[in-house]
Amino acid sequence: MKSDLLEEDHELFRDSVRAFVDRYVVPNLEKWDADRLIDRQTWLTAGKQGLLGLAVPEEYGGPGETDYRFRVVIQSEIARVGASALQSGFSTNDDIVLNYLLRHANDEQKRRWLPGFVTGETIGAIAMTEPGAGSDLRGITATAVRDGDHWILNGSKTFITSGILADLVIVFAKTDPAAGSRGFSLFVVEEGMPGFTRGRKLDKVGLHAQDTAELFFEDVRVPQENLLGEEGAGFAYLMQSLPLERLGIAIAAQTSAEAVMGWTLDYVKERTAFGKKIGEFQGLGFTLAELQTAVEVSRAYIDRCVREYNKGTLSAVDASKAKLWATELQGRVIDAGVQFHGGYGYMMEYPVAKAFIDARIQRIYGGTNEIMKEIIHRDLLKS
Amino acid sequence: MKSDLLEEDHELFRDSVRAFVDRYVVPNLEKWDADRLIDRQTWLTAGKQGLLGLAVPEEYGGPGETDYRFRVVIQSEIARVGASALQSGFSTNDDIVLNYLLRHANDEQKRRWLPGFVTGETIGAIAMTEPGAGSDLRGITATAVRDGDHWILNGSKTFITSGILADLVIVFAKTDPAAGSRGFSLFVVEEGMPGFTRGRKLDKVGLHAQDTAELFFEDVRVPQENLLGEEGAGFAYLMQSLPLERLGIAIAAQTSAEAVMGWTLDYVKERTAFGKKIGEFQGLGFTLAELQTAVEVSRAYIDRCVREYNKGTLSAVDASKAKLWATELQGRVIDAGVQFHGGYGYMMEYPVAKAFIDARIQRIYGGTNEIMKEIIHRDLLKS
Amino acid sequence: MKSDLLEEDHELFRDSVRAFVDRYVVPNLEKWDADRLIDRQTWLTAGKQGLLGLAVPEEYGGPGETDYRFRVVIQSEIARVGASALQSGFSTNDDIVLNYLLRHANDEQKRRWLPGFVTGETIGAIAMTEPGAGSDLRGITATAVRDGDHWILNGSKTFITSGILADLVIVFAKTDPAAGSRGFSLFVVEEGMPGFTRGRKLDKVGLHAQDTAELFFEDVRVPQENLLGEEGAGFAYLMQSLPLERLGIAIAAQTSAEAVMGWTLDYVKERTAFGKKIGEFQGLGFTLAELQTAVEVSRAYIDRCVREYNKGTLSAVDASKAKLWATELQGRVIDAGVQFHGGYGYMMEYPVAKAFIDARIQRIYGGTNEIMKEIIHRDLLKS
Amino acid sequence: MKSDLLEEDHELFRDSVRAFVDRYVVPNLEKWDADRLIDRQTWLTAGKQGLLGLAVPEEYGGPGETDYRFRVVIQSEIARVGASALQSGFSTNDDIVLNYLLRHANDEQKRRWLPGFVTGETIGAIAMTEPGAGSDLRGITATAVRDGDHWILNGSKTFITSGILADLVIVFAKTDPAAGSRGFSLFVVEEGMPGFTRGRKLDKVGLHAQDTAELFFEDVRVPQENLLGEEGAGFAYLMQSLPLERLGIAIAAQTSAEAVMGWTLDYVKERTAFGKKIGEFQGLGFTLAELQTAVEVSRAYIDRCVREYNKGTLSAVDASKAKLWATELQGRVIDAGVQFHGGYGYMMEYPVAKAFIDARIQRIYGGTNEIMKEIIHRDLLKS
Repeated sequence: MKSDLLEEDHELFRDSVRAFVDRYVVPNLEKWDADRLIDRQTWLTAGKQGLLGLAVPEEYGGPGETDYRFRVVIQSEIARVGASALQSGFSTNDDIVLNYLLRHANDEQKRRWLPGFVTGETIGAIAMTEPGAGSDLRGITATAVRDGDHWILNGSKTFITSGILADLVIVFAKTDPAAGSRGFSLFVVEEGMPGFTRGRKLDKVGLHAQDTAELFFEDVRVPQENLLGEEGAGFAYLMQSLPLERLGIAIAAQTSAEAVMGWTLDYVKERTAFGKKIGEFQGLGFTLAELQTAVEVSRAYIDRCVREYNKGTLSAVDASKAKLWATELQGRVIDAGVQFHGGYGYMMEYPVAKAFIDARIQRIYGGTNEIMKEIIHRDLLKS
Repeated sequence: MKSDLLEEDHELFRDSVRAFVDRYVVPNLEKWDADRLIDRQTWLTAGKQGLLGLAVPEEYGGPGETDYRFRVVIQSEIARVGASALQSGFSTNDDIVLNYLLRHANDEQKRRWLPGFVTGETIGAIAMTEPGAGSDLRGITATAVRDGDHWILNGSKTFITSGILADLVIVFAKTDPAAGSRGFSLFVVEEGMPGFTRGRKLDKVGLHAQDTAELFFEDVRVPQENLLGEEGAGFAYLMQSLPLERLGIAIAAQTSAEAVMGWTLDYVKERTAFGKKIGEFQGLGFTLAELQTAVEVSRAYIDRCVREYNKGTLSAVDASKAKLWATELQGRVIDAGVQFHGGYGYMMEYPVAKAFIDARIQRIYGGTNEIMKEIIHRDLLKS
Repeated sequence: MKSDLLEEDHELFRDSVRAFVDRYVVPNLEKWDADRLIDRQTWLTAGKQGLLGLAVPEEYGGPGETDYRFRVVIQSEIARVGASALQSGFSTNDDIVLNYLLRHANDEQKRRWLPGFVTGETIGAIAMTEPGAGSDLRGITATAVRDGDHWILNGSKTFITSGILADLVIVFAKTDPAAGSRGFSLFVVEEGMPGFTRGRKLDKVGLHAQDTAELFFEDVRVPQENLLGEEGAGFAYLMQSLPLERLGIAIAAQTSAEAVMGWTLDYVKERTAFGKKIGEFQGLGFTLAELQTAVEVSRAYIDRCVREYNKGTLSAVDASKAKLWATELQGRVIDAGVQFHGGYGYMMEYPVAKAFIDARIQRIYGGTNEIMKEIIHRDLLKS
Repeated sequence: MKSDLLEEDHELFRDSVRAFVDRYVVPNLEKWDADRLIDRQTWLTAGKQGLLGLAVPEEYGGPGETDYRFRVVIQSEIARVGASALQSGFSTNDDIVLNYLLRHANDEQKRRWLPGFVTGETIGAIAMTEPGAGSDLRGITATAVRDGDHWILNGSKTFITSGILADLVIVFAKTDPAAGSRGFSLFVVEEGMPGFTRGRKLDKVGLHAQDTAELFFEDVRVPQENLLGEEGAGFAYLMQSLPLERLGIAIAAQTSAEAVMGWTLDYVKERTAFGKKIGEFQGLGFTLAELQTAVEVSRAYIDRCVREYNKGTLSAVDASKAKLWATELQGRVIDAGVQFHGGYGYMMEYPVAKAFIDARIQRIYGGTNEIMKEIIHRDLLKS
């Protein structure tokens, strides 16, 4: 069944997103993967086309568009061409970093930072994970110690999306080891601050165009006016940001699953073996039927989540369910898609092959799916 | 995430359904299973409470309620107490038999038959399947031959829900062997017609209170005024009725899955082993989390189907997806529910045990789930 | 691939088992289910045919056959006709109760008890589980307190296989609450001891012919000469007996899966729909192929376990793997078997329907499969 | 449970294989992947160590070792370090190309070709698949037309393992379009023959060090003495070679699954989160337990296949079951292995990441797993 989430406005917006994607994304996909980087010009163009910083209020130079369905349109158009690294970069900016700034930055900070998120001049990153602490964020060891009107930041972070290009990095650090979960704060570290360096681009299974990296902070002096929100509230802020972060991943997964389903159906309806289109074989057909059903069923849930998010009522647990469900589905659809492409599914020139290596991280980042299950599990015990 | 399908009216209606269920259903469940029959009084009481024949127009004695969400309320309240046989009887009346009559009966027939569907005086059945022809309905061998203003009906039907009690049976028979799929017609056979006999109650895995039976037709003279709709249109009518029939099964499955999930959560939050509530063990918890997510995701799709049905736009393929998806989910949830009840899950006094034996037919009747997959498969090849 | 476990001797033995099964089991299956009991005559006949007490040494009246492959033959012939309740009764005697006696009874006790296991005059039971303690056996509350040369036994046990008929019951009771896992002992309670009573036959999902029951012990005076093995060693004995108990269940599961696979293949090669044998449809065929492969793969492992058991080297962990694996497989094969029988799979006259309700307990008793996973999990952490 | 397949001889041989692997393979893995090629020196060294051409009879310079368990040792030692591309190259030589030559080459041809398979001087390839014909080999279009004592070969082949390096390529071509499955023959094309060219190395998802390529044949004049076996017998030869080819893949899959299971267990027993080793969490533990069980169960079947192969009785269908089962298992184990490594599972420096991209082809080549299912399905209908 078709989704009924979008209205006319969104479909109009889709036209302009699609134009951007066809003109500026498709021709560059291979180059970006080879460069292991998406060029800044793409961000600037996207900004010019009105695809970035949607939620930035007008007073800070943005369109103030809080209807998340416009982001859904962007995600689905990017997924349609398999531009996973771009998707992940844009989503980090609009669904994660911007979300922190909109919620917790003061007026002065917003004035300083928000306009760049609209123009594409500012690429943001969020630095939480450390080599020794993944899903268990209370286990981080980065510290920030007060020194007059500065904080001295030390530590290293890893798996940072947009780590090489980021102009602005929100860093999660311990500010009071004795205060438990009230002992963490968020700092905005900007390109050029002494002591802030970047490691090599990480060599990943996929998402090659995504400049994931390690970041190092050695006695970085972060001015007090780069503290984001209240001292000690970092962990709470992080919890609050999770619904949108996870919804963003879920939508990327859902739209990717839909795209891969489409490519696969196209392929099996064209490829011939043993005298008929391979899609006509019932052995494949039953699996295709199950997957198509799964994709549509999942869509209904994701749409419901988007509506809840728009109303401000999407809970962290429900976002976890969306992330868990949609990324598992994406994995299954892509795996079958590869399989049904036969040998060609293993050839990088086929988008399903690229999807296979790109998507594997979706079940891991933003909180592994095991963490999602534990969150849901605990919630079940409560209710 | 909670369903947002129902509104205040429906919740008010739920109160009266629940009162009926608690007062007249719960105390009789064991007796019905032992009797292998639900007594007629229950139907009459349900009729009095306004739970039957919802869609019957006012002119024929009904409330004319075409908002299918009221049926959803009934299904969910019956599922809540695991009264699967009653669910199946009521659904056969309201979702299947009545649907045929509302669509294809003429005014005179409606006047004759519809009032009893509201009062509960008429129990209906639909007789399609034959010992040698299940999902492949074109393969049936029952025939009806014109003889003046009567038809001579011969054949036998099996797996007929409400087969023992039914007052009115819609029989699918071949009227023109040369006409292909335009060679079938529908006849309403009524209790008392000479030559119409009933076989033994079938000994089933579960659904013991459901009086499923074989029916025999030996030179039954069916008057022309009991022909339903047009001669030769039987197969087409059948196709048209499938969306609601399958949606009905899907809703029974979904509401059952929700109920079983609830019983299971209650159990694992109370039962102790190795010093803690067994629900706290992560090994169980991960599975519970996956299933709860699956139940909620599925609900979003089923709700979407109900909305489409209310708008008159639910396609046969989408109803097949709903039937496939929800009954598979129901099977998985119940299987896990039994498992997590340990030895008690195998004891008939626990509702999860009854659900286990009752629900197994859901993936088979109304078209096996393999047929659902093939329907979806063919649709994928078209689009 | 075919199993290569058995040799000529075993195949000869198979002939006599098959003769017994065809003559005394098949004609009684329905009656036993209706009676909720297998008559004692069947046990005596089996004893006469040399099918019981195989491992009883010659000095105690048995054949002293310790090659477990003869038990495999018995299990597979019983599984071939779906006589699950008989299988479970015989297995309780030969694989569980007898195993305890052979290992821990003294010469005088062996002289008293073993001959009846060979003739079929003695039906044994093992009473461990209590209403409040299933897999977590340290949590039991039954107690035995020393009183001169007797023990005063109190408590109640549930889910006891052969609970109604058992002449001899090995009861697991706490003899020293302060001694931790060294505080449990085993007692042989015999029919007729004052204070030993039996509850009603439990109303189960399936295995209807199996007289599973609750047992009550109220101030039962058990003489010291009915203490089995050493005082305080009960828990250790129990641990030692698990490999064979679980291997027995695994073999029942494996042979049942093989039988159901056979019935299902027979059915789909005969049943016609849409103009061909339903087994020819690739949609079913792929699943059948996967299941047949799974059955053969599993067989290779079970055979390996039997060989290890014969050598005395089957570990508890490997037996747990066998139990987990084979019972899960059995569940999957039967579920598909029911499905592929269509409506007939839900009719009790088809053996696959009976298998469906009978087999559900296999994943629960003998330690739930969740317990199996935890046992394997802990072992992985060690190694 | 441990495998009992190997004996002392094999374990001694393992020592020398392991020495080779540790000294010549491990240090080169990254380089080979970067070069997209394994250097010839490695082959020569392997030859010198006695790891190649095991089955070549002594009269042709080989050890004449037909006990396939020595190949199992080689496969498992290569799998232990994740050298999938080397595994695939060696297997193509020893399990496929050599198998054809041993079975169908005449004495003169054996003299010419076999010694190089022992020394590592000859790298072989098998060219069946074409761009338009994958699993359906009757659909190929390459042709060879007789011209005196030569054949004129035309066509193109794709997905050819060792395509760039191969010195000797067995080409499957149509020699009589009218003769149905008796219209295909096998030709040995050698490096340097005019008209034989190689395309680019294919850009694959993984197996980067494997020089998979397209091959082109344009009026290649193949001398009659390079016809392999009888004219017209090509298809039959191909069928005969499938058991060993598929067994080889199955063993690669099984040994890879075992290796990945080991890496994953090592990781989860070391990595800490939320205050304990992540392997201690029951949520992960249950999955690990299931997978470990699956790996051991599968091993029992694979071992049985090897024994059958050694006896000359491994059927094509049973080899298909092994290929289907083991590669599906490998896929599941690796997917879970990646997941349980968290973010590190997506980093190419971890062998599990490399396994993820390398192994995906296993379910596709050697006949897709859908083809395996169909082979098994058809066999079930026969029996």
